[in-house]
Amino acid sequence: MISKYRHLIDLNDFSVSEWDSIISLAKEIKKNPALYSHRCDGKIMGTLFYEPSTRTQMSFQTAMLRLGGSIIGFDNPETSSVAKGENLKDTTKIVSSYADIMVMRHPLEGSAKAAALTSDCPIVNAGDGGHLHPTQTLTDLLTLSEQKGTLSGLTVGLCGDLMNGRTVHSLLKALSCYKNNKFVLISTPELRLPSYIKDILNASSCSFCEVDSLEDAIPELDVLYMTRIQKERFSSEEEYNAQKDVYVLDRNKLMKGKHDLVVLHPLPRVDEISIDVDEDPRALYFVQAKNGVYVRMALILTILENPSPTKLFDGKVHAGVCCRNKKCITNREKYLPKSFWGMGDTLVCEYCDERILL
Amino acid sequence: MISKYRHLIDLNDFSVSEWDSIISLAKEIKKNPALYSHRCDGKIMGTLFYEPSTRTQMSFQTAMLRLGGSIIGFDNPETSSVAKGENLKDTTKIVSSYADIMVMRHPLEGSAKAAALTSDCPIVNAGDGGHLHPTQTLTDLLTLSEQKGTLSGLTVGLCGDLMNGRTVHSLLKALSCYKNNKFVLISTPELRLPSYIKDILNASSCSFCEVDSLEDAIPELDVLYMTRIQKERFSSEEEYNAQKDVYVLDRNKLMKGKHDLVVLHPLPRVDEISIDVDEDPRALYFVQAKNGVYVRMALILTILENPSPTKLFDGKVHAGVCCRNKKCITNREKYLPKSFWGMGDTLVCEYCDERILL
Amino acid sequence: MISKYRHLIDLNDFSVSEWDSIISLAKEIKKNPALYSHRCDGKIMGTLFYEPSTRTQMSFQTAMLRLGGSIIGFDNPETSSVAKGENLKDTTKIVSSYADIMVMRHPLEGSAKAAALTSDCPIVNAGDGGHLHPTQTLTDLLTLSEQKGTLSGLTVGLCGDLMNGRTVHSLLKALSCYKNNKFVLISTPELRLPSYIKDILNASSCSFCEVDSLEDAIPELDVLYMTRIQKERFSSEEEYNAQKDVYVLDRNKLMKGKHDLVVLHPLPRVDEISIDVDEDPRALYFVQAKNGVYVRMALILTILENPSPTKLFDGKVHAGVCCRNKKCITNREKYLPKSFWGMGDTLVCEYCDERILL
Repeated sequence: MISKYRHLIDLNDFSVSEWDSIISLAKEIKKNPALYSHRCDGKIMGTLFYEPSTRTQMSFQTAMLRLGGSIIGFDNPETSSVAKGENLKDTTKIVSSYADIMVMRHPLEGSAKAAALTSDCPIVNAGDGGHLHPTQTLTDLLTLSEQKGTLSGLTVGLCGDLMNGRTVHSLLKALSCYKNNKFVLISTPELRLPSYIKDILNASSCSFCEVDSLEDAIPELDVLYMTRIQKERFSSEEEYNAQKDVYVLDRNKLMKGKHDLVVLHPLPRVDEISIDVDEDPRALYFVQAKNGVYVRMALILTILENPSPTKLFDGKVHAGVCCRNKKCITNREKYLPKSFWGMGDTLVCEYCDERILL
Repeated sequence: MISKYRHLIDLNDFSVSEWDSIISLAKEIKKNPALYSHRCDGKIMGTLFYEPSTRTQMSFQTAMLRLGGSIIGFDNPETSSVAKGENLKDTTKIVSSYADIMVMRHPLEGSAKAAALTSDCPIVNAGDGGHLHPTQTLTDLLTLSEQKGTLSGLTVGLCGDLMNGRTVHSLLKALSCYKNNKFVLISTPELRLPSYIKDILNASSCSFCEVDSLEDAIPELDVLYMTRIQKERFSSEEEYNAQKDVYVLDRNKLMKGKHDLVVLHPLPRVDEISIDVDEDPRALYFVQAKNGVYVRMALILTILENPSPTKLFDGKVHAGVCCRNKKCITNREKYLPKSFWGMGDTLVCEYCDERILL
Repeated sequence: MISKYRHLIDLNDFSVSEWDSIISLAKEIKKNPALYSHRCDGKIMGTLFYEPSTRTQMSFQTAMLRLGGSIIGFDNPETSSVAKGENLKDTTKIVSSYADIMVMRHPLEGSAKAAALTSDCPIVNAGDGGHLHPTQTLTDLLTLSEQKGTLSGLTVGLCGDLMNGRTVHSLLKALSCYKNNKFVLISTPELRLPSYIKDILNASSCSFCEVDSLEDAIPELDVLYMTRIQKERFSSEEEYNAQKDVYVLDRNKLMKGKHDLVVLHPLPRVDEISIDVDEDPRALYFVQAKNGVYVRMALILTILENPSPTKLFDGKVHAGVCCRNKKCITNREKYLPKSFWGMGDTLVCEYCDERILL
């Protein structure tokens, strides 16, 4: 199944050299934004936010406005046709016929790919449930590249809920495409990285280790990527109380870090970074948030100015098989072709990447 | 009562030759949109959506943006001054003084005319309760004209809830102004067309018949206009179960249609057209939805570039008479002059068209 | 504490001669808006409305659009990162890095100043709880200046809830900076002006008197500024019923006013001005509402085209002292430096102006 538009559903829809081009273009734009302020004159971006995400939505809107374009869309499905029971296909089909590029956030996994099947314009996935959020990863790569001058040979600590963290998984997969990075995975035993991500790391030129203590790990890091760790992820109230401060970055822990450590966080944060850390020049999460605008400007230009087709499915339709992931879009939108690709005795859902043992 | 602005409250505020001009202009815009991309530079459209309607709102917004204009407005009265108890007059008076043209959707009938009484700019009615929705009808006319090359001599099937369907009533009234159309009215006996619409058809050069079966009717049609039929409209659960599939357009029924049949639907649909019909080249409801942008671009240009006054009332104020339609705006906004025009021993409310026998 | 951006948190952040310049510029813009329609091309305004206020939000949006700029923002914290527990600092820090100017409305007092501490662009306070709303006052001053040709020597009646009315307090403070105004304070005994405002008036060249009856006061007024009076503000149901009509401006009372009386209201109104007053040429509240756009255009230009630093704190941090105003932002956002300035044995909170006796 080929769509005639160039979509960004998964970061792997683009090659590593294309990532590098987007990052370079983002740096150029950041240096001289005025040069780009009319590149999307007359273009419209549709922003379909089926669940709230101010930060992501505003960064996309700012990116389009800074390129001279304009915006339609919704951020509240309660005030949309969705509330009247309209299916995903009809809503996205029509908005894609109004707009030149469509940005979509949806609570169900695989929804961006589902929309791409019938879209009349390119789609950018701005988060499909816990599955993918490729523009966050591009933002992270831009910030690392800008701060460190390279995306290779870095020692990167990732701290927090590594089991469920979408941004962590995506960043690890992306950085494993560069050479000789070392990952220090900092979490409780219950919240370790899933094994399928470890398989990807093992197959790469990168190495990793798993540790419990942020404080012990911090001295060797070039980069510390913090994420939210939620109380309800701990196995008991006692364990939470025992460990809750272990994964909070404060000035004391930061004192042990290198002088050129780069501290990132996808935001919003709750308590996992003390506010007094913000004043430290190594705290770069607000720079990272602003970089989200530049990288999205670069992405929009790349997609609109270099149209090319996207292959959406590699496998084949198995009409009788249902994806076992309850949060997969195919379990709500019944008309979608149930496409899987085979891997031995396993089928992999082409929407949400769930593995199904036959 | 004359307003100095040109409003579109009811399709009949414009003459049939003006409809034709708007449709022609919409076709020109569709052919060469770039020619029109600066025609509304610096103009602002206010979109006051007192009830949600993503499709309509986005099509108006897209139209204005494609003309170079910009947008203010709200789509959620909960987050507006309305929530503080402000009356319709004050809200619309002020927004109309900010904007160059105002688009309004409201759950109560006659609300667009009520707003026009004190507006400081032209108003377009984007739906006043179950009463009028003239830009949907213009969209339908454009699509028919484009697909059939004419608006006369067509055999048009209308299927679904013909008793309550605002778009059906409006389309029938509009098409009855053209010559020799034949309407096939497909519904359950309970959901037949109201007699006052039949009176209009009888007074025209058009004819109509009423039938129960979509399948039997489809072979002779040039156009099939599908609408939603709601479960709760049936007299009983049994009757619903017995008939629910009768009014669903699927591939089997479509096989009996002419090769150049045009299938339309105002959308959103729920179940009344099977999704596998979408692939058929005769399924033109997505084209119709996109045409909504072009026809609204043409309408905005017509209104902004050809200012002229609108006559809002023909009759006179009957201070002691209340409109009996509970959904009439005059029953909520008490300051409105209660204007009626007389027809024998009947008064007709000049807001919602309700007939009152004295 | 100095911010490098020019903010408008309190009207006193600008000098009286700067108010006069903004008012003059607003008049120039009103005369010839086309001259200003590209002055903010490429600029973005962020509008952060943590509570609904359609009128204020739309007037700011219209102002920015009429200058050629564009808009990002939210009007519903439920669909924003705020719903995920993000603090004020992070949200405003990031949006201020996306935008060129930020407009903020928040239910807590002192919130605009709190945001200014870490903002990356100028902030305009569009209402911080019951505390300040400086652009409403600028709107009032523009309308008075335009209608009366002066801001001095006027007899100004202010009617309604003078105890709690933020707009009344702010207007009185502003007009007391001009010469020889006389204020007639019309309210119930329970809703009299607070004494700290009376102190300001006593220290100025202006005089005031307190009266109960609107009808008795109206003949001598040059200006009548009406505000909402809420039922729940009366000490009992009986008192409300006895007095409710006393503070309603209707045609009968207006008959006793001067022929060049100027009637203003910050809107929205509920019942305190009869709708039939709207037709009177002295009813200028809709003109006032529209003037809100011109004065905000002038303010945006002044701020963006004349960058200069703002002094945010005069006093010092008292880490152990909590502001006793429960609605002060410092009581929710605990990381904020607790800054007070001293006045004898009193500390004044530098966010919300609450006085604390030590």
